[in-house]
Amino acid sequence: MFLSKLESLSNALKLINDNQKITGIEEISIHDSHKRVLAEDIKAFHNSPPFDKSAMDGFAVIGENTFGASQSAPKKFKIIDAIGAGDFSSKTVGENEAIVIATGAPIPDGADAVIMKEYTTTEGDDLTIYSQVTPGENVSPKAEDIKKGEKILSKNTFIRYPEMGLIASAGYDKIKVYKKPKVKVIITGNELVEPTKEEIDKAKIINSNQFTIKAMVEDSGAVCDIGHAGDTFEEVREAILEASKDYDVIMTTGGTAISKGDVVLDVVDDIGEILFHGVAIRPGKPIGAGIIDDKIIFTFSGQPVAAMTQFDIFARKYLFEMQGRSFDFNIIKKESQLKIPSQLGRTDFIRSFTDEKYTRHVLNRGSGIIRSMVEANSYIIIDENDEGYQKNDIVDVVFFDSLLW
Amino acid sequence: MFLSKLESLSNALKLINDNQKITGIEEISIHDSHKRVLAEDIKAFHNSPPFDKSAMDGFAVIGENTFGASQSAPKKFKIIDAIGAGDFSSKTVGENEAIVIATGAPIPDGADAVIMKEYTTTEGDDLTIYSQVTPGENVSPKAEDIKKGEKILSKNTFIRYPEMGLIASAGYDKIKVYKKPKVKVIITGNELVEPTKEEIDKAKIINSNQFTIKAMVEDSGAVCDIGHAGDTFEEVREAILEASKDYDVIMTTGGTAISKGDVVLDVVDDIGEILFHGVAIRPGKPIGAGIIDDKIIFTFSGQPVAAMTQFDIFARKYLFEMQGRSFDFNIIKKESQLKIPSQLGRTDFIRSFTDEKYTRHVLNRGSGIIRSMVEANSYIIIDENDEGYQKNDIVDVVFFDSLLW
Repeated sequence: MFLSKLESLSNALKLINDNQKITGIEEISIHDSHKRVLAEDIKAFHNSPPFDKSAMDGFAVIGENTFGASQSAPKKFKIIDAIGAGDFSSKTVGENEAIVIATGAPIPDGADAVIMKEYTTTEGDDLTIYSQVTPGENVSPKAEDIKKGEKILSKNTFIRYPEMGLIASAGYDKIKVYKKPKVKVIITGNELVEPTKEEIDKAKIINSNQFTIKAMVEDSGAVCDIGHAGDTFEEVREAILEASKDYDVIMTTGGTAISKGDVVLDVVDDIGEILFHGVAIRPGKPIGAGIIDDKIIFTFSGQPVAAMTQFDIFARKYLFEMQGRSFDFNIIKKESQLKIPSQLGRTDFIRSFTDEKYTRHVLNRGSGIIRSMVEANSYIIIDENDEGYQKNDIVDVVFFDSLLW
Repeated sequence: MFLSKLESLSNALKLINDNQKITGIEEISIHDSHKRVLAEDIKAFHNSPPFDKSAMDGFAVIGENTFGASQSAPKKFKIIDAIGAGDFSSKTVGENEAIVIATGAPIPDGADAVIMKEYTTTEGDDLTIYSQVTPGENVSPKAEDIKKGEKILSKNTFIRYPEMGLIASAGYDKIKVYKKPKVKVIITGNELVEPTKEEIDKAKIINSNQFTIKAMVEDSGAVCDIGHAGDTFEEVREAILEASKDYDVIMTTGGTAISKGDVVLDVVDDIGEILFHGVAIRPGKPIGAGIIDDKIIFTFSGQPVAAMTQFDIFARKYLFEMQGRSFDFNIIKKESQLKIPSQLGRTDFIRSFTDEKYTRHVLNRGSGIIRSMVEANSYIIIDENDEGYQKNDIVDVVFFDSLLW
């Protein structure tokens, strides 16, 4: 009888936030660091570049010596050495001298600029240049990118590929990151069968939540194992107790059994503490959450769309923040192409298709209609204090893509 | 001497597109299908739901029998059976009869509506209801989501988690998808060393492209192996020939060697065909591409930022479209907070930080400055026909996140 005491969305979110946990820290190879979250500040062990570096293939010279050179007034230099990438020269560039230099090689002593090969001709040791360069031209100065000892990235930074490159350049072969949360998803329901092309027994339904919820967990940076349990109190209790030993987070789908109320929540009540059950949202009202052995459990609906929406509203942020990564809906404003009815006191998450200018809610909105999720790329969010919107009203939209890890 | 004959960006992209390949097809388990691309149409083997299904825990009744029921005028029914999820009843609901029903269970014969448990009380077989339901209420009709035989997803659909759920519900345990392209990235450069906290030999530089480019390849749905080669023609030739045997796409970074021109392009010219070398873009001008043994090779710069940008402009679309997934820059309009100089005849991809309203280019733009990429979340793209923009002008922006697989 949860309907009489629906939790407000903000209260429910607060109850989850009050129980936010953070995973431990592990040291991993920089090779495995893509899309992990830093659990330490990164301070550079090296300057990058480590020396004044040539940015071009050409000739290292004293810039001032080139002044005035042009197609019609070329200047002559004497080539005294050559430096490949990875090499350096022990010679010093003097007046009207030049050293052949490759991109990436250190500027030799004496020189302060590089004239590109394209603006020169050579004959033996004789170099003719047809353009001038200013001191510093085509030189990447030492420490231009990173200064040795400087903090270049902070704890809790999400590691995209540029961050990987920066961390490597700073000298790290291993880094400390937050561990990936281990999530057990327990699919309950005596009616569920595996996908098959063969005829399905009467009253049975293909289990699709095992696929969608697992993919969502993995799209939140976590690892996921799937388990199954029948609809009885004993089966669900055993599955949840087992999961609470080895996993950081437990999720269930379904589990409303006839004449017994909600078996899953009864189990949570028996072996742990219910935080809430039933929230003033649509779809997904029957969502529950609890604490078992100091670990959070989310009890999702069996209806596929309700379960996905509940995950987005309640579980995604939890999994992100377990790994030190902050998460909030990135709400943008769009014009609604249709009238949207809603109900005071309830927050609606309406599947919609949004383009550059407009959003249009998907009309078939039953909480079991997976296809409505396939046709959508966003939620329209209607606050509990709003009674819906007229056509052409500006509404709050969150793109599904903006929710991803 | 590529500078004299820079290819226009549009020509370079056309040359790549003319050589677009598509990978083969493989059959995989639905369990492994997240973020793959369908290589077949999906037609439903089942209706979903497969039967008229209860959407609530409650009592299956003839809706018309409940008309007029309210708190003040309750109505009486006789309970004749009970159906759990996964079960069905062989009885038929008659006038003023009810069958206890769980969410997900099939509506029994005779009944056409479900009254929620919350609006009822029971005493033995006697049911009292305090609210009316219309016929069809709380019933998910058979085939509401999917009709048997209907095409529900088309070839070339990208499989997010809702698509996974829909495909499973349609009865597929295996599906045909495009194979992941196998990419070999060959890092060239005698100056490169592995990340280390220890002091680095003079003239050596830490190899960061091996991390960034591999992560970008994987973020394009492909698999990536990294190889290394020195700067000599022979080493590079051997590495590329070897890669062309076992991989679908070859990429190189660096490889400009002193006094020998661009070793990598010389190799491509020797064992294959150069499509172009040098494009009117900034950063990333020295980009090249070619065909070796009917496979494409992209020759990126050694400079980290140039290489990342070249990947985004030239290689990402190729890898997406190899897997049947279309790709185009999702260009949005933002107001520039700064003046942006550019040059006619060159397309600029300027690292920038973009928020809800504004974009601001990252000031330190050297093509080796990885940190500029870390500070950015987007490119400002300045067309070759534009000479730059004034402060507060509206400019074209592409978010990095919108490029991801």
